[in-house]
Amino acid sequence: MLDIEAFRKAGYQAVDRICDYYYSLEKRPVASQVQPGYLREALPECAPNQGEDFQTIADDYQKLIIPGLTHWQHPSFFAFFPTASTFEGMIADLYASSTCNPGFNWASSPACTELEAVMMDWAAKMFGLHDHFLNSSGIGGGVIQTTASDSALVSVVAARSLYIRKHPDVKHEDLVFYTTTQTHSLGVKAGLVLGMECRALEVKVEDQFALRGSILKRALEEDKKHGKHPFMIIATVGTTSSGAVDRLSEIGEVVKDHPDVWIHVDAAWAGVTLACPEFRETAQLDNINRYADSFCTNFHKWGLVNFDCSTLWVKNRKYLTDALDITPEFLRTKHGDAGTVIDYRNWHLALGRRFRSLKVWFVLRSYGVEGFRNHIRQGIELSQYFASLIRASPSFELVTEPSFALSVFRVLPSGDSEGSQAVTLELVNELNRSFYSRLSARPDIMLTQTMINGVFCIRFAVGATRTKKEHIDKAWSIIQEEAVAAVQDWTP
Amino acid sequence: MLDIEAFRKAGYQAVDRICDYYYSLEKRPVASQVQPGYLREALPECAPNQGEDFQTIADDYQKLIIPGLTHWQHPSFFAFFPTASTFEGMIADLYASSTCNPGFNWASSPACTELEAVMMDWAAKMFGLHDHFLNSSGIGGGVIQTTASDSALVSVVAARSLYIRKHPDVKHEDLVFYTTTQTHSLGVKAGLVLGMECRALEVKVEDQFALRGSILKRALEEDKKHGKHPFMIIATVGTTSSGAVDRLSEIGEVVKDHPDVWIHVDAAWAGVTLACPEFRETAQLDNINRYADSFCTNFHKWGLVNFDCSTLWVKNRKYLTDALDITPEFLRTKHGDAGTVIDYRNWHLALGRRFRSLKVWFVLRSYGVEGFRNHIRQGIELSQYFASLIRASPSFELVTEPSFALSVFRVLPSGDSEGSQAVTLELVNELNRSFYSRLSARPDIMLTQTMINGVFCIRFAVGATRTKKEHIDKAWSIIQEEAVAAVQDWTP
Repeated sequence: MLDIEAFRKAGYQAVDRICDYYYSLEKRPVASQVQPGYLREALPECAPNQGEDFQTIADDYQKLIIPGLTHWQHPSFFAFFPTASTFEGMIADLYASSTCNPGFNWASSPACTELEAVMMDWAAKMFGLHDHFLNSSGIGGGVIQTTASDSALVSVVAARSLYIRKHPDVKHEDLVFYTTTQTHSLGVKAGLVLGMECRALEVKVEDQFALRGSILKRALEEDKKHGKHPFMIIATVGTTSSGAVDRLSEIGEVVKDHPDVWIHVDAAWAGVTLACPEFRETAQLDNINRYADSFCTNFHKWGLVNFDCSTLWVKNRKYLTDALDITPEFLRTKHGDAGTVIDYRNWHLALGRRFRSLKVWFVLRSYGVEGFRNHIRQGIELSQYFASLIRASPSFELVTEPSFALSVFRVLPSGDSEGSQAVTLELVNELNRSFYSRLSARPDIMLTQTMINGVFCIRFAVGATRTKKEHIDKAWSIIQEEAVAAVQDWTP
Repeated sequence: MLDIEAFRKAGYQAVDRICDYYYSLEKRPVASQVQPGYLREALPECAPNQGEDFQTIADDYQKLIIPGLTHWQHPSFFAFFPTASTFEGMIADLYASSTCNPGFNWASSPACTELEAVMMDWAAKMFGLHDHFLNSSGIGGGVIQTTASDSALVSVVAARSLYIRKHPDVKHEDLVFYTTTQTHSLGVKAGLVLGMECRALEVKVEDQFALRGSILKRALEEDKKHGKHPFMIIATVGTTSSGAVDRLSEIGEVVKDHPDVWIHVDAAWAGVTLACPEFRETAQLDNINRYADSFCTNFHKWGLVNFDCSTLWVKNRKYLTDALDITPEFLRTKHGDAGTVIDYRNWHLALGRRFRSLKVWFVLRSYGVEGFRNHIRQGIELSQYFASLIRASPSFELVTEPSFALSVFRVLPSGDSEGSQAVTLELVNELNRSFYSRLSARPDIMLTQTMINGVFCIRFAVGATRTKKEHIDKAWSIIQEEAVAAVQDWTP
């Protein structure tokens, strides 16, 4: 067992080894190269009876764990969406871990609640969110959730609870909420968890996979005609597959005729671009402020704060606490209700919660708003640079318009676009699957695949803090090399 | 912004300051002494535009945050239940934070999934859980959740989903699951989240607030007669209020006649005592193994692993993945279904998840099973010592039998037990409220209150790693001192 001085030694060493890790990161394979079961084979079947020397344990971390990690912080990681990691976030997490407390209400550690309330206001202001989302408004407010799935689930619960209070006779089976076919799994999962119908609305390629008001309107009218009770729409700013942005203004106008429908805007990935004034129009700031009942973005994706840190704002905190408050009526306080003292346990699913606002504080202060903006701008510039390389090459095409820092592309079977019309979609998909297999086998890059409207394509998401122009160039050269090989192997 | 070398410097400093914190911990007030709003007043209204020097930020943590913390690691913290914090856990969290990835499936970072699967088996074996709970069984398995509330919610979702698959015509409104009046808020909260009836069964003082089979049997029969569909009972080993242990053997036998009823055993606090063979009978090991469909204990309470680490085992993992799997059928793999590769995203509410098994690994190896047991034994011994002091004093009484490391006591108005019968319960409660107010005002101890069957009483929970006999003696002297003063002030 580590005593204080042994911790000092082990702590210094951990810091040094993390420095080594970052110095050597670029030389490591991006994706882990281990086989299933590698670790179970390497570990004993039971915990040791007697305590082991900590140095052995720390060395085993290097020997057994690091090779089993996919390095999301690698500058050549372009898969999924980025997961943020900054040194500021690590140190904040270390401090939070050192005093370890569950911060479930104000009294259990005032600093945890108060810093979260203030940080959510700092973030709201940085993003240009309307004052009604501020904790200082005493009406709306913000809270840190674990993930965007939790943020969405909490919002669905609040929306359902509000709807049922207004319409107490409605049966659970008749409730329905909407997403689109492009919405993150968080929608379907909320439906599974709550045992409730989640209807995924069709979106169209000609709308760049954005949900249009007309489609929502038709669904609302259809469902109501059939005795259903729609109570919510989850709209997305920046879908996972292609970065689509639902038409919030149209959705908002349609919902005016259905005032019981709660609008949740999930901008888990792209929401952090709101920090930059020049991206606010694309990221729908005005419409979020005008129409959203709840809004979520994840600092832990592209926003420099280490996982987990999903920030959720609501227009009216009462809808959260009415749905989730487990304090019996006679224990409610004027302070609690008025928001003088927030008891965050009534704003999320669990009781206990970690002290996550500390890493927001450290990051926002150390980077400053300008530093945060520069990070976002750099991601978008690098992404635009990548898209320009794709556009300039006759061997590739962008499958959709690039969105923020995401490009979706595929290889074309021939430089001659006339000729390519002769081959079927199925054959081109086959070519791209083989191209993607080649890319996946490489240790020096990581990308993910997607299907868009039957088209197999490859996602290129920029945003890791260490990615620079040279890594885009390197990626481009790998992509070209594997495309040539894939095309050569391919016999249509 | 911190670069690698600036991180090294800031990291060393953080380690040093955490050492200072632990050296000085005992001299600090246990509960934070700040007033509501103290931090908002001290902080600017917005994030700074330009980045700030990290040293200023680190210094502000000491100046502004530490005074706003209630020190759950203080050796004189006897409130709520303990929240674990070990240096091993901190270092593991630091490493996990340094490579920051969301580990949602095997491929996203094999080490995260594999270590969790193995650690859950190590823990299961340490606790003496049946082989059917092991990940290596390929049928049941274990997963780390955020909190016991999440573990319970996930279990309710799985149980409901299983029930509905068997009885597809049952209406949501007719479903009911059971807890007792003594169950942690996790039961009521799961009901709120799912919009579902959670019926809290009455338990009796003469049963030491344990749920008896007969009460459950009556409820099941009553509810079924009224067309309800009971699908689950959440039983507790070690309730929050008084450490009550529900009669699992009776419950299990009753449920044999209602085979669709899922038994979840919540042993969030007391479950870790299963590590010690001598406590397994009290903690109901055999009955857990025989009857539980799911079982939860929190390492992050009394189990030496820093918050959060709620461990949940299920007899059949399929019930979790059937309820929560968002992988379309055609993406399911033989490996995934057979458990060769676990995709933990289908075992919990969210998608992304932190690398929490690392701290279990560090702690179990550094302490060893014997070290872990000694920690639990020490907590129970100190608690028994405290209870013996209460028992030996005519001025106090234990309101219930001490349970594991929890004693619930109150002050008596007079040393003369004959005389005390003359005063009403209400008056004695008044005395104890005043006694508790006095204790709460003290910076050198922290306790929490509870009501048991109309009796106002005070909880004394041992389990912080740094608590020693001298701290029990100190607590005892404070308790006596405040009791004398409270009795003096009290005029019945």
